[in-house]
Amino acid sequence: MLLTSSIQRDIQLLLYDQQNAPNPRRVRIFFAEKEIAYDRKQINIVQGENLSPEFLSINPRGRLPALVLDDGTVLDESVAICRYVEELYPDPPLMGTDTLSRARIEARQRHIEFDGLLPASEVYRNAYPRFQTRGVGGNVGVINAIPDLVTRGKTLMSNFFARLEEDLNHSPYIAGEEFSIADITALCTLDFATTSARIPFPINCPAIQRWYQTVSARPSATA
Amino acid sequence: MLLTSSIQRDIQLLLYDQQNAPNPRRVRIFFAEKEIAYDRKQINIVQGENLSPEFLSINPRGRLPALVLDDGTVLDESVAICRYVEELYPDPPLMGTDTLSRARIEARQRHIEFDGLLPASEVYRNAYPRFQTRGVGGNVGVINAIPDLVTRGKTLMSNFFARLEEDLNHSPYIAGEEFSIADITALCTLDFATTSARIPFPINCPAIQRWYQTVSARPSATA
Repeated sequence: MLLTSSIQRDIQLLLYDQQNAPNPRRVRIFFAEKEIAYDRKQINIVQGENLSPEFLSINPRGRLPALVLDDGTVLDESVAICRYVEELYPDPPLMGTDTLSRARIEARQRHIEFDGLLPASEVYRNAYPRFQTRGVGGNVGVINAIPDLVTRGKTLMSNFFARLEEDLNHSPYIAGEEFSIADITALCTLDFATTSARIPFPINCPAIQRWYQTVSARPSATA
Repeated sequence: MLLTSSIQRDIQLLLYDQQNAPNPRRVRIFFAEKEIAYDRKQINIVQGENLSPEFLSINPRGRLPALVLDDGTVLDESVAICRYVEELYPDPPLMGTDTLSRARIEARQRHIEFDGLLPASEVYRNAYPRFQTRGVGGNVGVINAIPDLVTRGKTLMSNFFARLEEDLNHSPYIAGEEFSIADITALCTLDFATTSARIPFPINCPAIQRWYQTVSARPSATA
């Protein structure tokens, strides 16, 4: 409801989306925080719709999300989409407000991606039977799942949670005093890890729990 | 020589560096393009210096590069470092000049990272005997190498080269008409893949070869 009643709709945006996938959700939350309206088209990754000729004509890499601007330009990468929108609609700022804060938020957001979202995705992709020959997402041909990546991914997620707990003991949000894109990436990582990838929520991490409750309570979290 | 005779040195910068690793080289090339001078300290990853208490006090993630600003602030992530420097020294622009070009360059740079640099790193890390218990970089504890990742990484690199060849048939540089950070990432990926990871150079790819010769001939490529 928030989205369709949005105040900002200077341009027509079409998001190729997948409701349960973490990367499209990052963009949806980002848009919700900015109160940007957009149209959505669901592409079912499990059923392989992302590898159909129709979708590959939009994004040859076969990845989601992809955002189509009103002139037909396609932005096919989640953080690039967010940066584009951040520049068009700077309020509320989600990627920093000065040179140093922009760099710090970028660093933290990338830490979360590489240390958390990547191993969580490896656990999911290499454990889920439907992805047995699609161990890597997107248009990369037959890639057999590697069961050892499930074990490894779980170990890496333990490590990730331990460091996140320590970090969140020192700051309210992932990249400091303010909610940012780094929190969005972390929220999507945690929800994806604990649902799709079936990794237990880190229950003995009070700082993560405090942070998780705070960011999950934002209206954008339902996006 | 370029670096020490640089014209831009308003601030003192110390780069924790590793000569042969791709991520520090991305930053060195970026700095060279900007003609920014900086001090360097080599951290030997193979010998585990990145996991020493001394270096972990600089960057708890144990990753390189890390840039220390003159007030002691540490930027510990390669693209975040580049963005910081891009804002301070906008000329020559390496991350775009308007909203759309910035988004497009970011998208392309991230494609190269995920589709090329990541699998090349997996081939290297999981094949090299010295990394047998450090299959993932940084401060993540014992992670055993997974030999299947070597095979998988080589398959993904073939796919990466094929798509890169097609893209470079349509544009002189990775993200379009101008040299950008996406070319820097791709150059470091290709050199790292063909030396450290011992993946053969894609010889039947004339567009990649043309592009490689062009970007390798820039003075910054020696950084």
